[in-house]
Amino acid sequence: MANLKDSGFQGAIYPINPKEEEILGYRCYRSVKDVGQPIDVAVVSVPAALVAGAAKECGEAGVKFLIVITAGFKEIGKEGAEREQELVRICKEYNMRIVGPNVVGVIDTNSPFNGSFTRGMPLKGKIAFISQSGAMLLAILDWSLSAGIGFSQFVSMGNKADLNETDFIQAAAEDPNTSVILCYLEDVTNGERFLEVVRKASQIKPIIILKSGTSQDGARAASSHTGALAGSDLAYDTAFKQSGVIRALNMSDLFDLAVAFVNQPVPAGNRVAVVTNSGGPGIIATDSVERNKLKMARFNKETLEYMRSQLPVEASVYNPVDVLGDATPERYTIALESILKDDNTDSALVLLSPTAVTEPVKIANMIVDMHKKYPQKPLFTSYMGGETLTEGIRILSEAGIPCYTFPEPALKAISGLVTYDALRTKLQKNKPIAPAPDVDKEKVKEVFAEVRRDNRVTLLGYEATMVAEAYKIPVAPVVLAKSPDEAVAAAEKMGYPVVLKVASPHIIHKSDVGGVKVGLSSAQEVKDAYNAIMESVTRLMPDTPIYGIEVQVMMPKGTETLIGMTRDVQFGPMIAFGMGGIYVNLLKDVSFRLANGLTREDIEEMISETKAYTLLKGYRGSEPCDIPSLVEAIARIAQLCMDFPEIAELDLNPVNAYPDKAVALDVKITLAGNK
Amino acid sequence: MANLKDSGFQGAIYPINPKEEEILGYRCYRSVKDVGQPIDVAVVSVPAALVAGAAKECGEAGVKFLIVITAGFKEIGKEGAEREQELVRICKEYNMRIVGPNVVGVIDTNSPFNGSFTRGMPLKGKIAFISQSGAMLLAILDWSLSAGIGFSQFVSMGNKADLNETDFIQAAAEDPNTSVILCYLEDVTNGERFLEVVRKASQIKPIIILKSGTSQDGARAASSHTGALAGSDLAYDTAFKQSGVIRALNMSDLFDLAVAFVNQPVPAGNRVAVVTNSGGPGIIATDSVERNKLKMARFNKETLEYMRSQLPVEASVYNPVDVLGDATPERYTIALESILKDDNTDSALVLLSPTAVTEPVKIANMIVDMHKKYPQKPLFTSYMGGETLTEGIRILSEAGIPCYTFPEPALKAISGLVTYDALRTKLQKNKPIAPAPDVDKEKVKEVFAEVRRDNRVTLLGYEATMVAEAYKIPVAPVVLAKSPDEAVAAAEKMGYPVVLKVASPHIIHKSDVGGVKVGLSSAQEVKDAYNAIMESVTRLMPDTPIYGIEVQVMMPKGTETLIGMTRDVQFGPMIAFGMGGIYVNLLKDVSFRLANGLTREDIEEMISETKAYTLLKGYRGSEPCDIPSLVEAIARIAQLCMDFPEIAELDLNPVNAYPDKAVALDVKITLAGNK
Repeated sequence: MANLKDSGFQGAIYPINPKEEEILGYRCYRSVKDVGQPIDVAVVSVPAALVAGAAKECGEAGVKFLIVITAGFKEIGKEGAEREQELVRICKEYNMRIVGPNVVGVIDTNSPFNGSFTRGMPLKGKIAFISQSGAMLLAILDWSLSAGIGFSQFVSMGNKADLNETDFIQAAAEDPNTSVILCYLEDVTNGERFLEVVRKASQIKPIIILKSGTSQDGARAASSHTGALAGSDLAYDTAFKQSGVIRALNMSDLFDLAVAFVNQPVPAGNRVAVVTNSGGPGIIATDSVERNKLKMARFNKETLEYMRSQLPVEASVYNPVDVLGDATPERYTIALESILKDDNTDSALVLLSPTAVTEPVKIANMIVDMHKKYPQKPLFTSYMGGETLTEGIRILSEAGIPCYTFPEPALKAISGLVTYDALRTKLQKNKPIAPAPDVDKEKVKEVFAEVRRDNRVTLLGYEATMVAEAYKIPVAPVVLAKSPDEAVAAAEKMGYPVVLKVASPHIIHKSDVGGVKVGLSSAQEVKDAYNAIMESVTRLMPDTPIYGIEVQVMMPKGTETLIGMTRDVQFGPMIAFGMGGIYVNLLKDVSFRLANGLTREDIEEMISETKAYTLLKGYRGSEPCDIPSLVEAIARIAQLCMDFPEIAELDLNPVNAYPDKAVALDVKITLAGNK
Repeated sequence: MANLKDSGFQGAIYPINPKEEEILGYRCYRSVKDVGQPIDVAVVSVPAALVAGAAKECGEAGVKFLIVITAGFKEIGKEGAEREQELVRICKEYNMRIVGPNVVGVIDTNSPFNGSFTRGMPLKGKIAFISQSGAMLLAILDWSLSAGIGFSQFVSMGNKADLNETDFIQAAAEDPNTSVILCYLEDVTNGERFLEVVRKASQIKPIIILKSGTSQDGARAASSHTGALAGSDLAYDTAFKQSGVIRALNMSDLFDLAVAFVNQPVPAGNRVAVVTNSGGPGIIATDSVERNKLKMARFNKETLEYMRSQLPVEASVYNPVDVLGDATPERYTIALESILKDDNTDSALVLLSPTAVTEPVKIANMIVDMHKKYPQKPLFTSYMGGETLTEGIRILSEAGIPCYTFPEPALKAISGLVTYDALRTKLQKNKPIAPAPDVDKEKVKEVFAEVRRDNRVTLLGYEATMVAEAYKIPVAPVVLAKSPDEAVAAAEKMGYPVVLKVASPHIIHKSDVGGVKVGLSSAQEVKDAYNAIMESVTRLMPDTPIYGIEVQVMMPKGTETLIGMTRDVQFGPMIAFGMGGIYVNLLKDVSFRLANGLTREDIEEMISETKAYTLLKGYRGSEPCDIPSLVEAIARIAQLCMDFPEIAELDLNPVNAYPDKAVALDVKITLAGNK
């Protein structure tokens, strides 16, 4: 109540309590029903056992939103989970939306509105902070008051029984007072909706997320904390990348990035110019430029000549520009203006170490003015020192020029801006691949039904091949033969040489029981091989049902790649591409993308991230492979996996790439178990 | 003079200036010669042109050390470099040692002595900070006064005309008032001496180095700053690892690590226990444990039962221990003491987020007491918040309990302690491999002399093979045949099948001119191949001198590895090991060690770091390879490269590993060009 009152909230406030007449000067009501006025939001802070009753009353009184601060729900186990389900049921009935339960509350510094139990109100600013951890929200509020960082919104999500990160991100994206969205997440409630909403929101404003539970132990701790089943960290990472989210790797990064995004524009490119009054920090900044995948700007001739004419001969006019230890504000001005003017500079970093003659305040004022003059180029600073620099740092921070103690975080922040720009551009430019119309869903359904009828979840080779063929995924043809003559007929049709493999769901290691014959070049060889396989398998595994023998054409040697799919519990099919063959597990040369919203450019990028790409482009004089065919195959595999959620796993290995085509030699499909 | 006076220096101070009678109350002398008393150190701060004269006078007066503050030497170019050489010459003549020139100076807070132009004296502490950048030293001094970090020594090395990092590290290692050595380096002056000294020093106390110039642009900036030729960053990284140095990757890490090392003991292992009053930060800490290659401690049954009996049922007693948002100091005490007592805990981290009922000061005092009770287990804290935690943070910091705003740096610091312990143990336990006595240096010298006589730097195959054989490095024998009969004789001796290759320094791509024949299984085939090669090569390259034809035994297929050597300008031979064969450049599966001081364990570790190791151990049921033979081969290659500095590059690829041996199939050696 005190927070609501002190926040300056302009609407009516009705305290509800059966025992009080008045609270903080407001008339108190015995029940929501007694208020008799329309109510938008009810902040519920009654014992857990009474929440359901309170919600019911609110529903009847026409309340639209509940902020349920009360704890004692899903997070405490079975009993609490049931209580939470009951709460959700009641709210659905009355069409009420819930924040929480188990939250610190919600703050909007612009309304203003403080429906939370925080100590104090955050400073007003442009950052919306959405947190799955209430304690972290309290800690950050406390810290931000000292650090002078302002917020537009503070949202504690608690158990996310109803409203979740996707709703709050969407709201923050639409909030005109928010320019950067910051999230601390332990999980995502609905991966599909998250992707859909965030893909759009991130094109409007930057979304920076710190996702915890990345480690095995961390995921266990997160799951015991929230009771949620987490998707794999790799899936989160991929989802963030494909939906334009900047991922912060730790708490410092989260806020360093936020401060950069709030105050500085996105640079036109990745070329950074550095001005320094000492060599060491200049070199450190230069190293950090490369480590953050940025580039040192190369100045044009005019810039260099001008600086050379104005600065002492001992100064270095190349990037990093060293204006020397005895640099005056004038020298800094000459250097900074020169590099900001230069078309080869996309962003600038000013470093200052305090020497006997340095004037940190004058230089800070100059930097602030220069930023007003060249507002389109992001400008960062690092004032390395303590007390003697405090006033200069204050001037810079208040003017929105990020200032760090050491140079490295500045370059991380610039890199964040550049990354965001690249992600946003990609989302704006590239559209998800339209599903290919020439696929035969019915055929796939038939094959799956047949497999299910046979009480299996793993498809036999010829079945998996039929599925691939139904989606026009290029695969070396496989025919199931039930007699030597059928095998010969199949071989004659597909052309020699061929391979014969025993078809049986019970035989995993076919070679071990003489179940495979390769390099068969004539009808006679095929017949002999057929009989030899049958003889050997029935002798070694006498009671095993054999479905027949698969005949497959032998493909020539190509560049071996693999295409695979695993299904993430949150984000759905995740496609893998990389080097194929028997060393897959050893080389681990694999790149991933989610099928959901996949673009042609995503696939091309996925391929280009692997070492296989080096081979595909043509390695050591070999002819380049048909990469577009691989792209097409991956797109169709993604479509197949999106169309059939019952495909649990899929593996094409190897997929041989040739100069004119790509052909899968082995297709493995496993369906989700019957439930 | 003011710094010297104010520092509290106990010795005599003699100002020297031709124009003054008295400075700051001290009698001033016209020349050093007039003092007439023994002088240990002279701080020289006269114009660059007068330094040589001053040095000469000092030398004649028996001064032992010069601290040359004056700039205008090597760092300004040719003229300055000559001035520096003259200074060095004079000092050598008088047996004087030089700090600098171009330095801020030297400070020792214990003597106390401040021979520098800093503003103010650092706080007294246990950290020695040795910096190649004077400006950085000034910045860190300023910053440390605000951050409350104390130092034993502050050393500015400047141009390192005489004394360099190795000398200062050695001195700091011997200084009883120093417990941690911190360096900012842009290069190392003498790699060999550095390795020798630091290997010993790092066993006495931790040495943490921030080495800049790691990027290409950074190295260029560093070299234009110091005029030094830098070794490769990879070599520095390897050198640091092999000599027990902890490498800091940025400025924050450098000081976070220093504070940890100064105040906390080295833990017995890598198992970390976490106590938190909120889930989110607990999960973040858990993620960070894994990211820093640490392990979450698993508590024993007694610990769990005790905590369960004492903490609320909602608390989590597993690691991270969650004492809940309303945790009292008592709850923190129960949890912290329980985990510190547990044998499965090697170090502990306490996290605190401020809620309405948290008592940060009481908890801080309790943590301080607990550290006194369990001093052998390193204890770290993260107080996440601002103003409300200031007093608690002060209490912790003053008691030497490192306290960070966010959890992640605490785990980086713990990881630094664990890494240091591992490095130190390795140095104490493992000794450099003694040179094998059964090598034939004379033979190698002969071969090299012959190559030089032929005006070549690249050895032919049979020559390189002779060198390898002289050092008992296992290599498939190669014989140079000058006629078909000689070829047959060689083949008969080594056994069929064999390979024939044309031997000529001018033919690089032997296959392209028909210069290679493989799989020759009889005398007739060898004869025919010999003639065919000769015919083809002389027809296609008529004027090219042919030395003969090399006959080599054909080795069976094995696991292909490579062993290589490149020579670093600073640290000498750097040995590479990894997967061999034609995909070397694609797979980049290579690990490195310096030959200098190489131990058998280093070699084993180098092998185990590669993917090749997975193959060597026996992959997918194949028989394990003879790894000890590879280790022996690498040791002998390292010895060869140390014995012969004229070997510029060496490459054995492939080295086929078999279950019972390892054999190099191709040896390439290139000598340094004649100078």
